[in-house]
Amino acid sequence: MFRVGLLAFLDRSFAVKLLVSRDVQPENSIVRVGDVAFGDGNFVVMAGPCSVESEEQLMQCADVIASSGGQLLRGGAFKPRTSPYEFQGLGEEGLRLLALARERFGLGIVTEVMSEADVDLVAAYADLMQVGARNMQNFALLRALGRCGKPVLLKRGPSATLKEWMMAAEYILASGNPDVVLCERGIRSFDSHTRNVCDIAAVPAMKEMTHLPVILDPSHATGRRSLVTPLSRAAVAVGADGLLVECHPNPDTALSDGAQSLTLDQFRALMMELPCRILKS
Amino acid sequence: MFRVGLLAFLDRSFAVKLLVSRDVQPENSIVRVGDVAFGDGNFVVMAGPCSVESEEQLMQCADVIASSGGQLLRGGAFKPRTSPYEFQGLGEEGLRLLALARERFGLGIVTEVMSEADVDLVAAYADLMQVGARNMQNFALLRALGRCGKPVLLKRGPSATLKEWMMAAEYILASGNPDVVLCERGIRSFDSHTRNVCDIAAVPAMKEMTHLPVILDPSHATGRRSLVTPLSRAAVAVGADGLLVECHPNPDTALSDGAQSLTLDQFRALMMELPCRILKS
Amino acid sequence: MFRVGLLAFLDRSFAVKLLVSRDVQPENSIVRVGDVAFGDGNFVVMAGPCSVESEEQLMQCADVIASSGGQLLRGGAFKPRTSPYEFQGLGEEGLRLLALARERFGLGIVTEVMSEADVDLVAAYADLMQVGARNMQNFALLRALGRCGKPVLLKRGPSATLKEWMMAAEYILASGNPDVVLCERGIRSFDSHTRNVCDIAAVPAMKEMTHLPVILDPSHATGRRSLVTPLSRAAVAVGADGLLVECHPNPDTALSDGAQSLTLDQFRALMMELPCRILKS
Amino acid sequence: MFRVGLLAFLDRSFAVKLLVSRDVQPENSIVRVGDVAFGDGNFVVMAGPCSVESEEQLMQCADVIASSGGQLLRGGAFKPRTSPYEFQGLGEEGLRLLALARERFGLGIVTEVMSEADVDLVAAYADLMQVGARNMQNFALLRALGRCGKPVLLKRGPSATLKEWMMAAEYILASGNPDVVLCERGIRSFDSHTRNVCDIAAVPAMKEMTHLPVILDPSHATGRRSLVTPLSRAAVAVGADGLLVECHPNPDTALSDGAQSLTLDQFRALMMELPCRILKS
Repeated sequence: MFRVGLLAFLDRSFAVKLLVSRDVQPENSIVRVGDVAFGDGNFVVMAGPCSVESEEQLMQCADVIASSGGQLLRGGAFKPRTSPYEFQGLGEEGLRLLALARERFGLGIVTEVMSEADVDLVAAYADLMQVGARNMQNFALLRALGRCGKPVLLKRGPSATLKEWMMAAEYILASGNPDVVLCERGIRSFDSHTRNVCDIAAVPAMKEMTHLPVILDPSHATGRRSLVTPLSRAAVAVGADGLLVECHPNPDTALSDGAQSLTLDQFRALMMELPCRILKS
Repeated sequence: MFRVGLLAFLDRSFAVKLLVSRDVQPENSIVRVGDVAFGDGNFVVMAGPCSVESEEQLMQCADVIASSGGQLLRGGAFKPRTSPYEFQGLGEEGLRLLALARERFGLGIVTEVMSEADVDLVAAYADLMQVGARNMQNFALLRALGRCGKPVLLKRGPSATLKEWMMAAEYILASGNPDVVLCERGIRSFDSHTRNVCDIAAVPAMKEMTHLPVILDPSHATGRRSLVTPLSRAAVAVGADGLLVECHPNPDTALSDGAQSLTLDQFRALMMELPCRILKS
Repeated sequence: MFRVGLLAFLDRSFAVKLLVSRDVQPENSIVRVGDVAFGDGNFVVMAGPCSVESEEQLMQCADVIASSGGQLLRGGAFKPRTSPYEFQGLGEEGLRLLALARERFGLGIVTEVMSEADVDLVAAYADLMQVGARNMQNFALLRALGRCGKPVLLKRGPSATLKEWMMAAEYILASGNPDVVLCERGIRSFDSHTRNVCDIAAVPAMKEMTHLPVILDPSHATGRRSLVTPLSRAAVAVGADGLLVECHPNPDTALSDGAQSLTLDQFRALMMELPCRILKS
Repeated sequence: MFRVGLLAFLDRSFAVKLLVSRDVQPENSIVRVGDVAFGDGNFVVMAGPCSVESEEQLMQCADVIASSGGQLLRGGAFKPRTSPYEFQGLGEEGLRLLALARERFGLGIVTEVMSEADVDLVAAYADLMQVGARNMQNFALLRALGRCGKPVLLKRGPSATLKEWMMAAEYILASGNPDVVLCERGIRSFDSHTRNVCDIAAVPAMKEMTHLPVILDPSHATGRRSLVTPLSRAAVAVGADGLLVECHPNPDTALSDGAQSLTLDQFRALMMELPCRILKS
């Protein structure tokens, strides 16, 4: 009686002819960000503070990330905040600090772009352009990123189905940019115990359907520092291509997302057990 | 033991000093769109096709809407679609057809703007600028609409809390535009029986917290034609300030959202029982 | 491309041969509880306290309910509570008080049965046997109620689909009891602003698929007193067959669910505007 | 502005004095099922068919499970099914087959009890009494299991919060039975791509709050065979105390849940990589 329902779980007919689909390209896409590759079996760790707050804060993070085997530096210069009265990021000054950290520590930069109008500005600094969860279906932004010349990190929307997420990536590919990395970051659910529910099965489920790399953001997925390390291990276990993780020299004073940021010591300890290839020496 | 939980339902402390809050402005805001007023006790019906498809289709709709007491004409010229390969709207040609319908039938125009880059273009035609559910937290777009000089219809995101929705409106007000109408259009839930779950209680709950007008979109909230009329009655029952409803001369051939569009006869029948003030004669 | 999805909204094939289905019985079922009928176009109001707490509390409620046109008295004697340390109800003493109120005020009694072992005991007192939301898929209880000889009020589970809810009713009918009234009481969602999300569209959607009466519980659906009256109006607007509503002489001292209970004055005011046929004179 | 919300993620005040709480008992509970121990650092694999269908089917499973290091045999004799017309299990005949498999292969038995009336019957055969997700808040059943003299496997309800799940366990402990194992089996969400969403973070989050063992059911959590192995690895990664996994000699002919059952070869391959201590030799 419910066989149709069961079959629906397995239905991929919507994806048959999409550029993002494994039916069109069976082998993994390799997305290169400088000398870092996503999708080739490597496990890439991107880390850093939620917001770029100051030169000192950022350099402290970058130093620890580079020396412990992290491959890319994340940090928000333009911050999407629920309230217009919360800290909105340092803007271009934040981008300049990220570029300075890249120069000093040799780490590529991941940072969010929130507006079509900022695509050129952010692309002038960033190595990997991040689309936040709230903008997953900002189609004008996706099209602009399809023409930006830089690889894109596309976060899943908080209530996006896997189909919708694939389709959002399809907008970028269809606009001319094949270099998209997908990032599961938790979905909205009924229990406020964690900030979001980490849909860990989405990682292998997406990798069945698409050839694009898929990574996990355990920080937003849980909202709680103590859960970040176990979830990072789970990311490895399910075959994710990497992690996007928040760390901060002093999380209790962070201007955003302190509760989910690892301390730098916790980050170092996490790196000791992850299967990252150390590229910087 | 769970008293704290119960109190949390009633917590409005986040809203104390917001421009959108009733704590700041106890009386209703009246948002004027031409000679139509939202928030003054009137029940405003905005109707039309999901997408503007052709002059004939749009004029047939506009004729019936105007003659049956509808006050504004809705129609999508820029369409947010899950897939890049679905019909994306007629663009500026669609806006021109809407303007033509306004001229012929005296109906103000509601239409969606999907991109900051299109704000000026859309504002040159529209009387009420619609922000779609997917863009509720596209903060760059919200800020641009705060400076556009036209009133804004802000749809609730499919998984937005009431707080997040109020905060999204706050972005527009804080950017200089006090004329915002809020639209409940269903939230994402676990049952695919209806397209979304119509959170009807959100209408009175929002009106307790904010002085802005709140309307209902029963078409997207249910996705099913047969449920649109009962939900429209419910909108009146809970004190909504109006409706945004889809109708089409021939829903079965619609390029988008046919299953949820009323036929023109069904729309006429609906209007007979709604408490609209007939403004056009 | 998504036509299949749209059709899925309308799929009723699962229901074709069910006893509860309109395909099997096109006309409404009339469920009689004493001289009260559900499903014949009448709008039935069942009201009373969440928990029976004392004779005085219950009689005060019953007096107001009877004199303002309410038709059945609700009150919990066995209470399902999240914690084992919360008030669990008065048990059989509560049932005796309900019977006393019936005698004095001529109101039939609705009360919850939580356990197969209690079915006979509760059936000895109750006129309508309530299955709580947590027990919607307690199939052993449903089968026992199929043989209990009394009509059943079946609440929707907090995350039950409409199909699952119909199937739960089917268990009762298939066990020999055709007298089932369905009750929408809100579903679980992501926003804690209201206790549950009232899925108002479920009322007409269920009535399309099943011939059984469908009523609304606006108290549990919202968890907030101020929203109960607007939602009660919405129940009438969408064609519900009645209401199950909580009221209390002094909600602030209630042993359970005080925040969502109407005062007796609020209840009287609500009754003034509902289309109930006054049966008691 | 949202600090209160962030703190709420970490709030455990509700749990302070519960029997299940780590505040009351900081060290792990060890729950023994025959010579198998949960909670002592061992990783326990329980496997078998969704439903006991025949002697041949069950013995084939048990043989492979025992020889590959599985420690307990699962199999449903009483099956909770959405429709009353679906296969309901073999009942006591199923229990007898399970006991026969125990005798032959030395595996303890896990099986579901759906009704208070069946507690004694099931306890006469089972080594570990399973409470299904639909019955997590069937408080009468929980109390009966508190007095049954056997350890209990308590599945999380499909929309239960972590607090509600802990409270359900508290009912069992408060009724006199300290031997409870908790099982995450996926929660209900908006995407039908997987049957449920596996809330993997619930495992470490629960283990922070309670001293009871917590295991994962990757079969129900995903509903798809291809995702069971990656999710099993994730269970190890996040510190789960074990797995409950479905396997079947021929999943395509299974009377229930075939799509999520591993073949026996897939199960054997999974066992090769799990950190189970082989107890049977």
